[in-house]
Amino acid sequence: MSEMFVPIEWLADGKVRFLDQTRLPQEEVWVETADYERIADAIRRLEVRGAPLIGIAAAYGLALAARASRAKEDDGLRADARAAADILRSTRPTAVNLAWALDRMLALIENTCSDEARLLLLREARAIHEEDIAGNQRMGQYGAELIPADSNVMTHCNAGALATGGYGTALGVVRAAWEAGNLVHVTATETRPLLQGARLTAWELREGAIPFTLIPDSAAGLTMRRGRIGAVVVGADRIAANGDVANKIGTYQLAVLAHENEIPFYVAAPISTIDLATPTGDEIPIEERSPDEVSSVRGTDIAPQGTDVSNPAFDVTPNKYVTAIITENGVARAPYGESLRSVCEAGVPARG
Amino acid sequence: MSEMFVPIEWLADGKVRFLDQTRLPQEEVWVETADYERIADAIRRLEVRGAPLIGIAAAYGLALAARASRAKEDDGLRADARAAADILRSTRPTAVNLAWALDRMLALIENTCSDEARLLLLREARAIHEEDIAGNQRMGQYGAELIPADSNVMTHCNAGALATGGYGTALGVVRAAWEAGNLVHVTATETRPLLQGARLTAWELREGAIPFTLIPDSAAGLTMRRGRIGAVVVGADRIAANGDVANKIGTYQLAVLAHENEIPFYVAAPISTIDLATPTGDEIPIEERSPDEVSSVRGTDIAPQGTDVSNPAFDVTPNKYVTAIITENGVARAPYGESLRSVCEAGVPARG
Repeated sequence: MSEMFVPIEWLADGKVRFLDQTRLPQEEVWVETADYERIADAIRRLEVRGAPLIGIAAAYGLALAARASRAKEDDGLRADARAAADILRSTRPTAVNLAWALDRMLALIENTCSDEARLLLLREARAIHEEDIAGNQRMGQYGAELIPADSNVMTHCNAGALATGGYGTALGVVRAAWEAGNLVHVTATETRPLLQGARLTAWELREGAIPFTLIPDSAAGLTMRRGRIGAVVVGADRIAANGDVANKIGTYQLAVLAHENEIPFYVAAPISTIDLATPTGDEIPIEERSPDEVSSVRGTDIAPQGTDVSNPAFDVTPNKYVTAIITENGVARAPYGESLRSVCEAGVPARG
Repeated sequence: MSEMFVPIEWLADGKVRFLDQTRLPQEEVWVETADYERIADAIRRLEVRGAPLIGIAAAYGLALAARASRAKEDDGLRADARAAADILRSTRPTAVNLAWALDRMLALIENTCSDEARLLLLREARAIHEEDIAGNQRMGQYGAELIPADSNVMTHCNAGALATGGYGTALGVVRAAWEAGNLVHVTATETRPLLQGARLTAWELREGAIPFTLIPDSAAGLTMRRGRIGAVVVGADRIAANGDVANKIGTYQLAVLAHENEIPFYVAAPISTIDLATPTGDEIPIEERSPDEVSSVRGTDIAPQGTDVSNPAFDVTPNKYVTAIITENGVARAPYGESLRSVCEAGVPARG
């Protein structure tokens, strides 16, 4: 992990350090905290965002909570950990990685003594983080093979190093293609309302020296119709058992436009994002966020006072528009009921 | 015209008064000028925008230029008028109403003396303005019949009173439905980059007390998929002879999404927007505007410095996605080659 940008880190003094992504691209502000409620706030305020990163941050948050707990009895620590997990879990409803990471952590301490539990939770949080990075790199290898040579890859929102433990999912695929010598160019949609494309993907691609062009969300259709896009690759916040994909608002319309223009539409996500317990996208809760995110931009009002606003943070793309789902365990294709179960059950396949 | 909001007006003292739309919704600033180059600047800077309004403003601009010309000889005045028309014409490339209005004005003074020409040009500019308003009201009547009762009508950008001589095209249809007692609700897309939906349509609908909800452009697909939209109605900047429609960037993708969700997609535009000399949308020039419009919002940077940006101001919607084109002379449907020619050749039909 030495040379790699990571947006969150456990520090030797028992604190968590994370990049406040709301301040990008103007300022690179790092926050250090030993308070799990500060982590919950960071998730709620989108200082830390992106489904995989939310899971990792919550895991570190739970490790912080266990360390801070004064409980001496094993049951007391478990109760404190569960209470902290409830707070962390309640921050955002759509991304399943959050619940996945917390459940994985809590399961570990069912039958342990309190001191061991504190150790196990920290070790597991770090494991979740490291597995995420290694998984993204494998995902990148699988995905890079799907990217046409020298093509223009459209992506939406930010599914990069900033959205994960490091390397990225959708941008990890782009990064792997780039590192393999494929001269890809990225078209980044700005991703209103919170502009993760303009602020975060642009920042990250510039840092990685990968060439890109920024477009308004409304120019995606024309850009595809002009024949300039070889593939669309996006991340995901939750993938239902049938392959329906919840992701940043606007993803569904990119998928429809890609389909209409005969452009492959790929979703890159770790298996922790696949929710086999949710049968279809219809059952995925869609977070509705504050009207202010739409009626003002970075503090400047853009609509008349009191304007009624709808601000859904995610949408669901029906599986019929998804060409393939790229995971760290391989590429799943329709019928997804079968292929997603298969990648979820697969161990890490040998490569070489 | 007494009770109606008009965004531009010829004043008794020989000046033109227009609303600077770049300042909305925060400030309602009216500009008065007797200088046609100020009108050209206003069109260029989008202080005055919307295809029909651009045509009207250019017509008034030409009338101003003729009044200001010191030419005593008939040829001298014609030369001055043509020079002014060239400057006005060069301000923006996509909307055909601009060229249409200027050509209509210039044709009038082919064989007139200079004093008569000055009078004729002013009279014609006012006629173009008044015809536009009357045409929009007729268009509204035709269009209102197509709007399902109590439905939610999605519109894009601003094709309202602010974009025309008054009353509006797409919003004229909504207004006529509303005035007829149909309890329509409008879903307005914010329309990045310049936010005409958030700034102008929201302002105009609030002034008209017509209920509406503002959404980011990226939420259009989800809103349609949720079954909340009964019809999409947009304006146009140029309609080719085959029914392909150039309009604000993002229109094409709304049309594809409407088609995919089985929602009727209507274009409301005066016949001055129909360009029978342009066979298909492929021949319509698409204006590329400054990157700054995307990389900053109302003066606030939202992307890293030096980010490469693509900022096409318009796109073309192929005729196959257009359910009907609503004009002041009736409703045109596929095959458009025939129906558009027919509405263009029609006189004003009797109603009642």
